[in-house]
Amino acid sequence: MPVHTDTISIHTRGNGDVKDITPALSECIRRSGVSNGIASIFCAGSTGALTTTEYEPGAVRDINELLDRLIPPTPPGPPWGDYHHHQTWHDDNGHAHLRASIVGSDITVPIRNGRPLTGTWQQVVFIDFDTRPRHRELPVTIIGE
Amino acid sequence: MPVHTDTISIHTRGNGDVKDITPALSECIRRSGVSNGIASIFCAGSTGALTTTEYEPGAVRDINELLDRLIPPTPPGPPWGDYHHHQTWHDDNGHAHLRASIVGSDITVPIRNGRPLTGTWQQVVFIDFDTRPRHRELPVTIIGE
Amino acid sequence: MPVHTDTISIHTRGNGDVKDITPALSECIRRSGVSNGIASIFCAGSTGALTTTEYEPGAVRDINELLDRLIPPTPPGPPWGDYHHHQTWHDDNGHAHLRASIVGSDITVPIRNGRPLTGTWQQVVFIDFDTRPRHRELPVTIIGE
Repeated sequence: MPVHTDTISIHTRGNGDVKDITPALSECIRRSGVSNGIASIFCAGSTGALTTTEYEPGAVRDINELLDRLIPPTPPGPPWGDYHHHQTWHDDNGHAHLRASIVGSDITVPIRNGRPLTGTWQQVVFIDFDTRPRHRELPVTIIGE
Repeated sequence: MPVHTDTISIHTRGNGDVKDITPALSECIRRSGVSNGIASIFCAGSTGALTTTEYEPGAVRDINELLDRLIPPTPPGPPWGDYHHHQTWHDDNGHAHLRASIVGSDITVPIRNGRPLTGTWQQVVFIDFDTRPRHRELPVTIIGE
Repeated sequence: MPVHTDTISIHTRGNGDVKDITPALSECIRRSGVSNGIASIFCAGSTGALTTTEYEPGAVRDINELLDRLIPPTPPGPPWGDYHHHQTWHDDNGHAHLRASIVGSDITVPIRNGRPLTGTWQQVVFIDFDTRPRHRELPVTIIGE
């Protein structure tokens, strides 16, 4: 049972851009020749996250509106003031780091019959929270037989 | 080191029903014969999530009350209005999708000495956020030796 | 492809202490001799969590201030009252359990060329949400070749 390493390359608009990576993941699994096992995907960067959702425009917009409420680009007034991360680097993406830490930078998806075993209305998504367009290379590790 | 695939089948009441799946996971591991490795569990559906907690009625109630505050069934007034997902499908489970995306649809648990290595006061739980009772088949992938 | 099991031992101050475990993880991978694969880390306890962030004092403080807002040590007034977990055990760490369940107790990191494939400004961190100093033994499972 060898390990198969692959990469999903994507361009994003940043600012909460939600990308359906299920087709690219399916292609990685097909290339690996693995029928049953797992595919582990990671975001090697601290302003992006991996999760699943029903990938339709309404749900995607809901995710961004939810995170705008819970983890806004500017924290809610005193006593919180600005994000401390901004003071460290004179940066503007403190909320992007926080959103990525909460949603999580990894996901492991089961493989059955050579395909990712996701629900009918469920997609594996990468969300780019950074405040500018980014090119991302997501490492994929496939283990199985 | 072969891959062992299994399934945890559960009935839930939906609406934040928290199920302790640790006994079922232990049984999957026992069936696999694996002593050391990992067990990866997934929810193949976008309205359920996997995490760990101390499975006692107080903590379970706290999880649901927290999510009712942070990700309510109806978003908090203007300018947010209703969840956009509801407009797409005339559906009522927009909050269920959001909660699942934030809590996360996968978990990987270490196996040691043929058992899941969880804490004494820690259980692996599946939470069903959908707005109706559901039957769920959670794929389990066990890799180890 | 054998499985390598290891442990990361750390002392924490609790109360949201964020520990960069990337160096310890790198050492586990070095010891395993694995060049390509995955490292799966788990918190065997329900008041700690694993995630990634840019490990600098500002971002670390932002994480704790965010969680103080979203999941405070005392829930926000009626109708919520106190955490039910406190009534079960006359305990004071209900918020610690909730934070751990939301952030998540596991992370799987890709291994490439014998090292964890993290971003330049990204570290793997353990956050101890418990309300007292703790000694933690985090199981690490490395699979690869």
